[in-house]
Amino acid sequence: MRAVRVHEYNKRPMVEDVPDPKVSGPLDVLVEIGGAGLCRTDLHIVEGQWAEKSGVALPYTIGHENAGWVRDVGSAVMGVRPGDAVILHPLVTCGLCRACRAGDDVHCANARFPGIDTDGGMAEFLLTNARSVVKLDPSLEPADVAALADAGLTAYHAVRKALPLLHPGTQVVVIGAGGLGHIGVQCLAAMTAAEIIVVDRSPAALELAKGWGATHTVPVDGGQVGAVADLTGGRGAHVVLDFVGEGGTEAEGVAMLRRAGSYFVIGYGGRVEIPTIDIISNEINVIGNLVGSYNDLDELMALTAQGKVHLHTRKYPLEAVDEAMDDLDGGRLQGRGILVPTRS
Amino acid sequence: MRAVRVHEYNKRPMVEDVPDPKVSGPLDVLVEIGGAGLCRTDLHIVEGQWAEKSGVALPYTIGHENAGWVRDVGSAVMGVRPGDAVILHPLVTCGLCRACRAGDDVHCANARFPGIDTDGGMAEFLLTNARSVVKLDPSLEPADVAALADAGLTAYHAVRKALPLLHPGTQVVVIGAGGLGHIGVQCLAAMTAAEIIVVDRSPAALELAKGWGATHTVPVDGGQVGAVADLTGGRGAHVVLDFVGEGGTEAEGVAMLRRAGSYFVIGYGGRVEIPTIDIISNEINVIGNLVGSYNDLDELMALTAQGKVHLHTRKYPLEAVDEAMDDLDGGRLQGRGILVPTRS
Amino acid sequence: MRAVRVHEYNKRPMVEDVPDPKVSGPLDVLVEIGGAGLCRTDLHIVEGQWAEKSGVALPYTIGHENAGWVRDVGSAVMGVRPGDAVILHPLVTCGLCRACRAGDDVHCANARFPGIDTDGGMAEFLLTNARSVVKLDPSLEPADVAALADAGLTAYHAVRKALPLLHPGTQVVVIGAGGLGHIGVQCLAAMTAAEIIVVDRSPAALELAKGWGATHTVPVDGGQVGAVADLTGGRGAHVVLDFVGEGGTEAEGVAMLRRAGSYFVIGYGGRVEIPTIDIISNEINVIGNLVGSYNDLDELMALTAQGKVHLHTRKYPLEAVDEAMDDLDGGRLQGRGILVPTRS
Amino acid sequence: MRAVRVHEYNKRPMVEDVPDPKVSGPLDVLVEIGGAGLCRTDLHIVEGQWAEKSGVALPYTIGHENAGWVRDVGSAVMGVRPGDAVILHPLVTCGLCRACRAGDDVHCANARFPGIDTDGGMAEFLLTNARSVVKLDPSLEPADVAALADAGLTAYHAVRKALPLLHPGTQVVVIGAGGLGHIGVQCLAAMTAAEIIVVDRSPAALELAKGWGATHTVPVDGGQVGAVADLTGGRGAHVVLDFVGEGGTEAEGVAMLRRAGSYFVIGYGGRVEIPTIDIISNEINVIGNLVGSYNDLDELMALTAQGKVHLHTRKYPLEAVDEAMDDLDGGRLQGRGILVPTRS
Repeated sequence: MRAVRVHEYNKRPMVEDVPDPKVSGPLDVLVEIGGAGLCRTDLHIVEGQWAEKSGVALPYTIGHENAGWVRDVGSAVMGVRPGDAVILHPLVTCGLCRACRAGDDVHCANARFPGIDTDGGMAEFLLTNARSVVKLDPSLEPADVAALADAGLTAYHAVRKALPLLHPGTQVVVIGAGGLGHIGVQCLAAMTAAEIIVVDRSPAALELAKGWGATHTVPVDGGQVGAVADLTGGRGAHVVLDFVGEGGTEAEGVAMLRRAGSYFVIGYGGRVEIPTIDIISNEINVIGNLVGSYNDLDELMALTAQGKVHLHTRKYPLEAVDEAMDDLDGGRLQGRGILVPTRS
Repeated sequence: MRAVRVHEYNKRPMVEDVPDPKVSGPLDVLVEIGGAGLCRTDLHIVEGQWAEKSGVALPYTIGHENAGWVRDVGSAVMGVRPGDAVILHPLVTCGLCRACRAGDDVHCANARFPGIDTDGGMAEFLLTNARSVVKLDPSLEPADVAALADAGLTAYHAVRKALPLLHPGTQVVVIGAGGLGHIGVQCLAAMTAAEIIVVDRSPAALELAKGWGATHTVPVDGGQVGAVADLTGGRGAHVVLDFVGEGGTEAEGVAMLRRAGSYFVIGYGGRVEIPTIDIISNEINVIGNLVGSYNDLDELMALTAQGKVHLHTRKYPLEAVDEAMDDLDGGRLQGRGILVPTRS
Repeated sequence: MRAVRVHEYNKRPMVEDVPDPKVSGPLDVLVEIGGAGLCRTDLHIVEGQWAEKSGVALPYTIGHENAGWVRDVGSAVMGVRPGDAVILHPLVTCGLCRACRAGDDVHCANARFPGIDTDGGMAEFLLTNARSVVKLDPSLEPADVAALADAGLTAYHAVRKALPLLHPGTQVVVIGAGGLGHIGVQCLAAMTAAEIIVVDRSPAALELAKGWGATHTVPVDGGQVGAVADLTGGRGAHVVLDFVGEGGTEAEGVAMLRRAGSYFVIGYGGRVEIPTIDIISNEINVIGNLVGSYNDLDELMALTAQGKVHLHTRKYPLEAVDEAMDDLDGGRLQGRGILVPTRS
Repeated sequence: MRAVRVHEYNKRPMVEDVPDPKVSGPLDVLVEIGGAGLCRTDLHIVEGQWAEKSGVALPYTIGHENAGWVRDVGSAVMGVRPGDAVILHPLVTCGLCRACRAGDDVHCANARFPGIDTDGGMAEFLLTNARSVVKLDPSLEPADVAALADAGLTAYHAVRKALPLLHPGTQVVVIGAGGLGHIGVQCLAAMTAAEIIVVDRSPAALELAKGWGATHTVPVDGGQVGAVADLTGGRGAHVVLDFVGEGGTEAEGVAMLRRAGSYFVIGYGGRVEIPTIDIISNEINVIGNLVGSYNDLDELMALTAQGKVHLHTRKYPLEAVDEAMDDLDGGRLQGRGILVPTRS
């Protein structure tokens, strides 16, 4: 099969022929890829930023946002059959550790991460296992939803954790209406009646955010903390979802909170720095957020099948990965790039 | 009546005669003080550190950890009668704002704080209201429990918030086994089966902690983060309760967490500083904690009446406030100092 | 002022002149009534069904779903001022018992219930207190929302309790799309992405339910349990909200549950009868629901101000209470009847 | 190996030789049995009461409360190794359905139940899989804890679900201090500071209950509902855990609740019958309880290793199963009977 493989750091990956993977274990699932999302993390992998952390041996196949069709299954697989359209949870988890058994499989003690530390989905086929495949509603096309497997799932997970705090009459701030944030806004609109205040640098993104369900939009012009104060009667927001997490949003997000409010860190790159007296006198919380669980992904697919979450994508043939990476790197890619293998 | 009053910042308060307060409003409750806890905050008040924040007009009576007996009540007071022994919640709250109505009266939009921003309890009598008085079990003496009104309540509140995270098989670290921490350890032992790891600089405090319910004790010798790692199978603790919050415990407390763990800030003075990538990749939380609610205080009194929480105190006559302050300032006060008015 | 007063059971109430109530206590609030909802309970009061339970002394003024404008306030009232439009929580609560302090004021140990056990709102003015008045958004008219004070609040409360069970991909059954149920459906649509299955005897009510947000509708034709099974893949629903609670829905509602499902009792009149082996082998729950709290009402008003909850009403002058009762009793009242005092 | 096998209903099982089971699948775990609990359900199986429900083909080996030592494992097994002492969760679950992935594996869509619908543990060896084995602390002997695998786990599960309702100052009633109930009392004492009121017919059981942590004991003499009312200030208990569930406790348990209280059904045989008006006017809940999850069992083992849960057992050689059944049937078995294979 054809696959996008990294041979050397700081060199673009090559599209080349490799042997097709095959089902051998009882829980193995062979998926024909319908679409693989291209993510900024892929650029970082190529740059070698993940080399030490992942410990992966080169060459290997990248692609960690994958969806397609089941083509073969091991003897013990339940729930999916050849022909089923599926989206893949980004992790392959063990199902045996306490975290997996507690619905918290993202913290699986034995997880692998295809596309990061083992072969991923920018290829014609991917070998995964039964714990990773979420069956799709017939209304959904793999290539259309692939990018929800990681970026979308992260946004959904943070929103779902915030739900108990977001009763009618509350305000939630979304910092950053980009790839993750615009999914976050749609999830908030679908599952809460909270007022949604979207903060972004881009007037175009703010304009789009209104269509996704934003109640108010706030430009990043130096006055954003004050603008949120004005929109919340001077008290601040109950929840701030920070999809940026760097460049100053860490402090601004905290400053936008009301007493007993919660600041959710989703984006990263910067630092949270708060005097402990401010943490205790306002009794605020800082909540970390990683990607969502398998069940979260299943729920996000239910939302998507209901038409409540839309993803803006641009499709490229697998062979055009270099062009797609150029477009992403050059800021020419509106929405999410999806690599689609040519079906022979 | 006699009262301990601050006339000038940076001068010790005077014990002097002032008119007895009187019930005038329908929810007023007049309490004869049985004991008023002396707290490091009282030293800071005298030093003027709270002058700007509280905005209180001098002279005024200090004392924010109070218990005694009801002597008179307004026409609309329910639940207590003259003669009842009571402990006083540190805040006088409105009962009308959303926070008060949600069981979160600590965040009352209209609260006053006797002893901080209005006359407090280092006196023969204190005028408070029906929303602040918790009736004591007949087995409890006001002077014995007064210091639970603020210091103890803060510890209880943090522990109660952590309970859902502390199922059998979990580990909780308590940093600081002093005035608040030793109540925290007793509350943990009374309400959870978690393993309790106590970290403190003082070998004597660690020794005492074993008697309160500590499973393990760890000295502060530079190896405390490693010691917690060893005691938790290299994974870290599920919960860290930091009763210090300065001098390096902020970073150490976070370093003691396992994946998806929660760091509770209770003590203060320092700064929490964490790269956002660490917050998200381990999906950890930083949880602020203020004093507890009225219902928390009621629950803490239930625990205390059951004999599950003991407080080490040393009693002084009200007139000896200067000596008590000297002892506290000079590190000669083991346990909590309690000022007891002479009953004529 | 004019007031609708019951003088004798089994005789229709009279509209007569009574003295205007006046503010005397510090928390009193005098409200000029803008609208008072007419409820089937009012018919039952007239029939004497509540005589023993309420213990009210005749004559008295009925009306327990009230909204209007503040005209005078006691000295200690915060949050509302004369001129403010308000809706009234059905209970007048103490704010001092544990339930009130825990956000569960419906279980207040000292509550009064205007219109049931003391003078209510079918009058030009009602004297209530500061714990009962919820300020309205300027976009809302008292007469339009009055019936949300009790009927709507009960539906909202049940839905809010069910929210944690209703993630995307779940199914919730609403039995009975009448006065309460149609608010329930709108609240579900506003706050969840669950599939909503509405069961009712009336084809017209089912048709309307689609407009409020029902995903599926099921007629009561003897096959309703099977129909829910079909709509849930044979597994049953996660939650059943029974707004009827009599005439067989008690057993059908339980039969519609999936394993670990929850049956919410809201309507009443019948009996829940379940073998304990069925309760444990399916691990199902039966959840009681009373009217909502003050904060629930505040949240429902936020939803209503957002345009997410609509109430079908028909207005009558206060003097026409007899005609309104005839219409209600005779089944000629579509939507909720609202009595509106003539403003002089 | 020797095994206790049912050949015909209404005939006592035979102890006979059968081939040793062997590891063949990748997740298989072969356990040498250290002890298998004898349960009243085993008598019911022999009487044929489970024949239709389980659909098991005769002959087969009974025994559903099992513990022992791992002797062999499949290629994909993680977490346990040959030699490890383990207790077995009663179900063998799939790890793939939503329930398994949500920490609710008791509701696994694909579970098998060894000793009920497939070969169980009254034998020298049992073949199970990696999802069922909980590793024991070195301080615990398999034969001592085997009966916690089902009876104890059920009690623990119910208590754990009730914990959020049981803050200090609350009262919990335990109806039935027998096999399950006495574990329940110990779990309550280990994890809450609630007052524990134990209700039982047997004065001896009540006497023992005091040693396990009961605050009050109440004999079943017709006055038990009144006695609970007296012990709860006339208000009733916050939680009732009914380990009997038949013979009148269903109605008494509900009558012992306070407003907003919860009645937990654990024992079975009778019927819950409550007018819907009582359910809603008191806003009470009826909560079903099945056996606990794998993680619950892991937590119960942590409690047991801490010395907080003790089980009274009497050991019999496997060959003496008939005598053990006679003793159980004849009421001569104090505590739990444990069958122990003779180690050759």
